[in-house]
Amino acid sequence: VDISEDELLAAIRRVLSVSDPAIIVAVGDDAAVVRPGGGDLVLTTDAVVEGVHVDRATATAREIGYKAVAVTVSDAAAVAASPRFALSSLTLSPEVDAAWTMELFGGMREACDEFAMSLVGGNVSSGPVLSVTVMVTGEVAAGRAISRAGAEAGDLVTLTGSLGGSAAGLRLAREVVHGREVTDEVRDAIRRHQRPTPRVGEAQVLARHGATAMIDVSDGLVIDLTRLCEASDVGVRLDLGRIPAHPASAEGEALGGGEDYELIATMPSDAAASDAAAELREVFGVPLSVIGRITDSGRESVDEAGASRPLERLGWDHFG
Amino acid sequence: VDISEDELLAAIRRVLSVSDPAIIVAVGDDAAVVRPGGGDLVLTTDAVVEGVHVDRATATAREIGYKAVAVTVSDAAAVAASPRFALSSLTLSPEVDAAWTMELFGGMREACDEFAMSLVGGNVSSGPVLSVTVMVTGEVAAGRAISRAGAEAGDLVTLTGSLGGSAAGLRLAREVVHGREVTDEVRDAIRRHQRPTPRVGEAQVLARHGATAMIDVSDGLVIDLTRLCEASDVGVRLDLGRIPAHPASAEGEALGGGEDYELIATMPSDAAASDAAAELREVFGVPLSVIGRITDSGRESVDEAGASRPLERLGWDHFG
Repeated sequence: VDISEDELLAAIRRVLSVSDPAIIVAVGDDAAVVRPGGGDLVLTTDAVVEGVHVDRATATAREIGYKAVAVTVSDAAAVAASPRFALSSLTLSPEVDAAWTMELFGGMREACDEFAMSLVGGNVSSGPVLSVTVMVTGEVAAGRAISRAGAEAGDLVTLTGSLGGSAAGLRLAREVVHGREVTDEVRDAIRRHQRPTPRVGEAQVLARHGATAMIDVSDGLVIDLTRLCEASDVGVRLDLGRIPAHPASAEGEALGGGEDYELIATMPSDAAASDAAAELREVFGVPLSVIGRITDSGRESVDEAGASRPLERLGWDHFG
Repeated sequence: VDISEDELLAAIRRVLSVSDPAIIVAVGDDAAVVRPGGGDLVLTTDAVVEGVHVDRATATAREIGYKAVAVTVSDAAAVAASPRFALSSLTLSPEVDAAWTMELFGGMREACDEFAMSLVGGNVSSGPVLSVTVMVTGEVAAGRAISRAGAEAGDLVTLTGSLGGSAAGLRLAREVVHGREVTDEVRDAIRRHQRPTPRVGEAQVLARHGATAMIDVSDGLVIDLTRLCEASDVGVRLDLGRIPAHPASAEGEALGGGEDYELIATMPSDAAASDAAAELREVFGVPLSVIGRITDSGRESVDEAGASRPLERLGWDHFG
């Protein structure tokens, strides 16, 4: 970076300055000190690494900052928590300067504002590769967190929104750079990739309607649904014909694409699923689709012709 | 890494498995859910990056894991908090395999056990450069955190332990690799560099005896003392002849070396400082030295001959 560490930290403090009465000691001290709101404390972290999750050629600093917060918030949302405070830990590579870094913080601040959180601290290092790690704390009423582990045979598998948009957006963003024309669908897909929307309020509606288990779709529907089933020690029958694909998505992107940050929630009854769907449509304008059913054991998919196949891992494995 | 992400995560869960009744949802879900113990919540994060803070040629995976937790705990200690939960976010480079990664987690686990914390979650990505980011939550009685900002003119500047050992250890570890003989002093210095001891209990003793401000010495005495003075809007007169240097340290390493993780605490009176010193010596075997006095304004150092000079920034600046 082209300014000193203390100058950079002072600039960051100005970007992050918020008046949140729950913050006792804010950005710039050894640690942040905050007053918790009661209930259980939710802790989660995620990271974006240049060349792996983000690309400065196709995303702005502001988009990278926004996304780093949003994807971490999604993990807090997936246990039905309200996100509350964030910390960031940056490794800045020689290619980024102070102005770029301030834009990055601007994007993080924007996401925090959108999800009613405060960025209360963090850490800045230099290193050979840009990375942004975000930690989020959240609050949930004591005992009311929804883990991956509560699904039971007979539950309906439901999904918010649509899948494949982010994978399509990643593909299309590269094409757009090379001069492709942009339709509304393409623009929406790119936006889903670069400014994903964690389903914070939606998760709380699903929890209130009795969701037995939840997970966010970060690595792809098949892989994340498999994780939910493994954690719950249940099977599943996934109805391939009912999976809502984003209109810009191509073959395979809805099942395996990842980074859509939609929620998979298992619901205990048809009534619970349809009541939750009605509320999600009315309050958030977000559809809820029933895409399968939890079974005692065995994970299989059924296509529109009724043919059954083992549910394979089509998702993205970071070390695959 | 040489195994799949889910295999790695399963192995990590086995290393981290703890029985802590405050953990409601543990490692392996979207987020950890814990039951807070009351009081204010302390949040802090730090990172170690290969080639910047750690070197796999001179430190083992276990040492790197231990250090990543210890340096973050030091920031929580510096506000007089009890560390409670940790999250880790790793970027694993192609050079490290699953066995190395498990040793890294072993070191993180060892540090967590030592400081009575639980590692409750985290994130693993692949990337070109190894980095380990740790986030720590801590607890402190409501309103009792000690920030950098409370020092007042007339306070004594005190320091736990000695300085320069870590810088000496970094220098000597490289020489030892090349066959240098190892004395007890050298061994202690290397240990200070690779397994630093955050002053958790010591900070609480200092707080109980009325410390008005604290900061840990991570970037070097001069730079961290300057930060405390800037946050408190005060000056300081640093007595160079009273700074306790580690016996293995060379010229400049005590003042500017950094990474010693000792505490600077400002104490409101001679009695408070000597009572705290007596308790620290008795309970922890750790000396507390009076190394200067807070003034209204101006930052200066005084050498043993009585000559005064402006307190310069001799510390390590990450972007210097």
